[in-house]
Amino acid sequence: MSNTIGNIFRLTTYGESHGAAVGGIVDGFPAGVKIDVDFIQSELDRRRPGQSAITTARAEGDKVEILSGVYEGVSTGTPIAFEVRNTNQHSSDYEEMKNLYRPSHADYTYQTKYGVRDHRGGGRSSARETISRVVGGALAKLALREKGICIAAYTSQVGSLKLDTDYKKYDLSKIESNIVRCPDSEMAEKMIELIKEVKNEGDTIGGTITCVIKGTPVGLGEPAFGKLHAQLGAAILSINACKGFEYGMGFDGVCGRGSQMNDSFISENGKISTKTNHSGGIQGGISNGEDIYFRAAFKPIPTLLFEQNTVNKAGENAIIKARGRHDPCVLPRAVPIVEAMAAMVILDAMLMDRCAKI
Amino acid sequence: MSNTIGNIFRLTTYGESHGAAVGGIVDGFPAGVKIDVDFIQSELDRRRPGQSAITTARAEGDKVEILSGVYEGVSTGTPIAFEVRNTNQHSSDYEEMKNLYRPSHADYTYQTKYGVRDHRGGGRSSARETISRVVGGALAKLALREKGICIAAYTSQVGSLKLDTDYKKYDLSKIESNIVRCPDSEMAEKMIELIKEVKNEGDTIGGTITCVIKGTPVGLGEPAFGKLHAQLGAAILSINACKGFEYGMGFDGVCGRGSQMNDSFISENGKISTKTNHSGGIQGGISNGEDIYFRAAFKPIPTLLFEQNTVNKAGENAIIKARGRHDPCVLPRAVPIVEAMAAMVILDAMLMDRCAKI
Amino acid sequence: MSNTIGNIFRLTTYGESHGAAVGGIVDGFPAGVKIDVDFIQSELDRRRPGQSAITTARAEGDKVEILSGVYEGVSTGTPIAFEVRNTNQHSSDYEEMKNLYRPSHADYTYQTKYGVRDHRGGGRSSARETISRVVGGALAKLALREKGICIAAYTSQVGSLKLDTDYKKYDLSKIESNIVRCPDSEMAEKMIELIKEVKNEGDTIGGTITCVIKGTPVGLGEPAFGKLHAQLGAAILSINACKGFEYGMGFDGVCGRGSQMNDSFISENGKISTKTNHSGGIQGGISNGEDIYFRAAFKPIPTLLFEQNTVNKAGENAIIKARGRHDPCVLPRAVPIVEAMAAMVILDAMLMDRCAKI
Amino acid sequence: MSNTIGNIFRLTTYGESHGAAVGGIVDGFPAGVKIDVDFIQSELDRRRPGQSAITTARAEGDKVEILSGVYEGVSTGTPIAFEVRNTNQHSSDYEEMKNLYRPSHADYTYQTKYGVRDHRGGGRSSARETISRVVGGALAKLALREKGICIAAYTSQVGSLKLDTDYKKYDLSKIESNIVRCPDSEMAEKMIELIKEVKNEGDTIGGTITCVIKGTPVGLGEPAFGKLHAQLGAAILSINACKGFEYGMGFDGVCGRGSQMNDSFISENGKISTKTNHSGGIQGGISNGEDIYFRAAFKPIPTLLFEQNTVNKAGENAIIKARGRHDPCVLPRAVPIVEAMAAMVILDAMLMDRCAKI
Repeated sequence: MSNTIGNIFRLTTYGESHGAAVGGIVDGFPAGVKIDVDFIQSELDRRRPGQSAITTARAEGDKVEILSGVYEGVSTGTPIAFEVRNTNQHSSDYEEMKNLYRPSHADYTYQTKYGVRDHRGGGRSSARETISRVVGGALAKLALREKGICIAAYTSQVGSLKLDTDYKKYDLSKIESNIVRCPDSEMAEKMIELIKEVKNEGDTIGGTITCVIKGTPVGLGEPAFGKLHAQLGAAILSINACKGFEYGMGFDGVCGRGSQMNDSFISENGKISTKTNHSGGIQGGISNGEDIYFRAAFKPIPTLLFEQNTVNKAGENAIIKARGRHDPCVLPRAVPIVEAMAAMVILDAMLMDRCAKI
Repeated sequence: MSNTIGNIFRLTTYGESHGAAVGGIVDGFPAGVKIDVDFIQSELDRRRPGQSAITTARAEGDKVEILSGVYEGVSTGTPIAFEVRNTNQHSSDYEEMKNLYRPSHADYTYQTKYGVRDHRGGGRSSARETISRVVGGALAKLALREKGICIAAYTSQVGSLKLDTDYKKYDLSKIESNIVRCPDSEMAEKMIELIKEVKNEGDTIGGTITCVIKGTPVGLGEPAFGKLHAQLGAAILSINACKGFEYGMGFDGVCGRGSQMNDSFISENGKISTKTNHSGGIQGGISNGEDIYFRAAFKPIPTLLFEQNTVNKAGENAIIKARGRHDPCVLPRAVPIVEAMAAMVILDAMLMDRCAKI
Repeated sequence: MSNTIGNIFRLTTYGESHGAAVGGIVDGFPAGVKIDVDFIQSELDRRRPGQSAITTARAEGDKVEILSGVYEGVSTGTPIAFEVRNTNQHSSDYEEMKNLYRPSHADYTYQTKYGVRDHRGGGRSSARETISRVVGGALAKLALREKGICIAAYTSQVGSLKLDTDYKKYDLSKIESNIVRCPDSEMAEKMIELIKEVKNEGDTIGGTITCVIKGTPVGLGEPAFGKLHAQLGAAILSINACKGFEYGMGFDGVCGRGSQMNDSFISENGKISTKTNHSGGIQGGISNGEDIYFRAAFKPIPTLLFEQNTVNKAGENAIIKARGRHDPCVLPRAVPIVEAMAAMVILDAMLMDRCAKI
Repeated sequence: MSNTIGNIFRLTTYGESHGAAVGGIVDGFPAGVKIDVDFIQSELDRRRPGQSAITTARAEGDKVEILSGVYEGVSTGTPIAFEVRNTNQHSSDYEEMKNLYRPSHADYTYQTKYGVRDHRGGGRSSARETISRVVGGALAKLALREKGICIAAYTSQVGSLKLDTDYKKYDLSKIESNIVRCPDSEMAEKMIELIKEVKNEGDTIGGTITCVIKGTPVGLGEPAFGKLHAQLGAAILSINACKGFEYGMGFDGVCGRGSQMNDSFISENGKISTKTNHSGGIQGGISNGEDIYFRAAFKPIPTLLFEQNTVNKAGENAIIKARGRHDPCVLPRAVPIVEAMAAMVILDAMLMDRCAKI
């Protein structure tokens, strides 16, 4: 509900862009997991602003501190709280926005819903909230790693520059080899060029991220409303700027016939698998042991460096021009966020599945 | 979790395809709503098998009985239980499937997860489970109607036959005028032809459904993980055969620039609205008072009337050929299910929003 | 929340006293448990009105029907729905109460909270709601039995007639040997006499129930708010007419010194136990492997067969005299309800505990 | 679940006694409440160790910092995170306890449940966890105050020194006038003497706390499992060392007849109230507008300053003698904790009640 996600493994987050800190509490994290704080920090660094020429110039340090739930480097089963202090906030950049609603931002809806809002840097609706997701996801990854499950996401489309939808055509070990996080280095070059071009125009551009989860056992996911892909979908769609989610054959698959899309089972040496994987590793909402993969759409973020029509708090028509330092394209920094959300859902489903049988 | 959806308004469902009944309990339904049982039944009739030449020939009566929570035609605030007895089940059609896993069905994953399964008609994974969703949704619609909110879904694509993505081009009052539930009568004809053709081949075909929600106030949806579109996405993706969800500009919108996609605010006579609605009526996860619209992808259902390769419970390779009576295309009957899920999410969000301010 | 209890094992109930049925859905019940419907019915029979000279003369049949979640006598992991049709309701007995608020009943509070109520037989606030608890508890007992856990409750006090608080002084196998469900046959006679006396006066009387849980492993219960005794307390206090809950040394133990109340650990043949058990089998909110025991207070039920002052719906002073058939003492029939609530909490805690470690 | 309490208003807590900090996140706090940080700190000061001659000599500063959810002194509707850094921890006092289980503490149960534990100062099971409850409760009190609801608790029993159970006999404005927080100054003197005596013996003593809630509207609480007193009971029983909960007539009331215990309604000038209040302000689980009152039992805390028999981690019999600085009696410092838990439950119930009607 609201600021908590998960059933057994549960992350609750807090924090405004220009408040004292952002952070969260992970409850239900299993005891006995080795907690590698350097790894958690390295995941945050993948999300960090200012990491490359195609992200925002804001240089946030974003150092995570673990406050509880870990003793002598091992999780104790009690809540793991963490925080990242906000240090490089320029609230004055936002002074003008106190009384103006930025188009396609959350200013107007927050103000109307709550009757009050912290306008600085977008307040709670700022993408700084995703810091907490990355930390929660890093913790989940540490637990999943012990179970042989790994998760990799990559930028699969920027504007109209689009990879083939079949992730098997790419070498996922190359994702981190370029700043746009695309496993195809040729396409990566083009994407980087496009983002720079858009940036120079003061404009922004969207794209898609593909995520692949390998090593899941058969049985993750719950019937009816707790289907694994419904949980993944909710988690991914809750990321700022996300506009769509599809898994397996997705939207393109609707054009095919059932006879083309069905995944035949085969048995080899006592191991059951499927010949194809149009299902995306999930059948009836439950993982079938094949790779799970999905794709998420991210809109061009709405902060533009030129004038736009809008209204102010008094309900009068007005002109707004954003200042501050912003990403021309959210995709490269959203890659670790997508992975984090997927990791938390999968770990939670793994824990839930332990209760399926007497 | 699992078989419950919602925060305040909560539907819990039960039932297997060939068990005694399917049904559910709605908890958190507000008192004082006039309960029109005929309307609820009429919604079920829209979902009913055997309703037209392009749906399954199974003629299930599907009569709903309300067991509690309603007194003298008005909701009392206590749980509303309902049930639909299963009456026309041909379990023998499924005898062969006891030991065979149907490709791209939930047989294998349920059997592995639980170590046991009711194979008859797909058991819990059968689309008969959606009966309970339609009843829950009909109840929600009755409450929403009193608040001036209405919801309409329609078939927007079958195979490659696709309507324009702008729902404003269509007269939504015409949705029920044809058996495929498409507001464009010319396209409807083509879709019906295609489905008949596919049916004759013993094959199946997928498509998309578009849903439009009108009349929502500003303020529905919760920050972070409870964003309105994340809740809608989870609800829709949990429908059998759903493979994707997008709202507003969705996947197509990623190709545009921010400057093309932003929705400028305008103020007219003291009323704030947006010039365009690429956001799909939701900004920062909270409704902004514009129409909410989204699109969902449904795969071709996997029950084919010819032989397929598969494995059996013993892990041996085998051949399966479905019998029974099945839909060649899930779309027409999925329309009321999509509406139902949307209605429950919106009502729940409306109730949650009452707690936003002191 | 409201009509659902539990985290993993979750019971949701519905039903009014004079509605069509009472029943519920158990979600999260583990697959693979043998479901003995006769046992479930026998538990309901222990709760049934009209079972003896000291309970109400209403002769409700209360036959349970299982609607889902069980296949070939075994739980399948999907929701188990059940219902008991209401058959012997005399709604006319309650006609007068439509506009009168019975003292110390829920009439006034329901009417004010919801603006509407089903007054017949107390509607949702009737103790018929506990039928669903007994069925849910019987299911939980079936699962616990497979894990060697058993639960026994008994009437430990009626009015001022009170057993010693040490349950070890009694032979719990004798609980069902008398109609008041007290393991001390001499005291049972006295209690029965007292109840009959009170009944003849048209009055009612309260008492306490003691419950003992044997065979629990170390580790059930969760830190902070999910302490095992807090979950037990919430479950027991939610039973109609319950006014208090204490476990282990309880209220009496507050007079002692720490040195008298501490439970020393001893180790014998590698098994750790405690010399005494003032803690009631729970330390820090987590079971320690000793017997868990608690005591619950039940008020004299408020339905009296003589005139009382009250007010009516119009807010005017009035006189009420109950008709209908009522229990002079809730204790004997509350024994299986207390056991049922305890069983559900323990099973839920057992499932939760599976997620404590990686 | 576990470390979260509440439905709409939800507090999640974290922190070990000797970790970096204790704290929490309040989600679902309504926007628009004036946040008086001095008041929150003053509530913490009431709980603070070292505040008087009858509490532990540990002098913890316990300064609270609010990290989010408040802007310009007003709540914004987003999560309110807070923390109290641990500063005066003497971990070496506990070195010996690394391998020893303190009798009637949580050492053994935590170690067995999780396979690992932070033994220092009791880790998560330490009463330092209640700091987060007091802060959460102080926030709730600020919201309730705006609705005219106030909550007062007091020490009503220490050992065998016991006040009359009728709270109306005491002047609740005098509670804070003495260090034991008892509104009867004569009894307070005796209690203080007794606690000092027990302290000198190196022993501890228990007692009870009574809590009174004034100003609640009719309608708080939910049917079946969400009864207001069940929620209060769960909240209070989850406080460290609590062994029992009773409300209204409680355990003593079971001896009376229904005719003595019923609360007649009276109507005066259009206002409905009850002549007596044996029900404790709650009927059918829903508040009736009268004062809500309850009593909680707290055991003598188990930390004694002399030798006790126990076992060590290796399962061998051993001798333990606590060092460190401890309270001889938990009651005076538990008073604000009881109030805090009650405040959070009442606010949550108030928010839930907003959804009762359409």
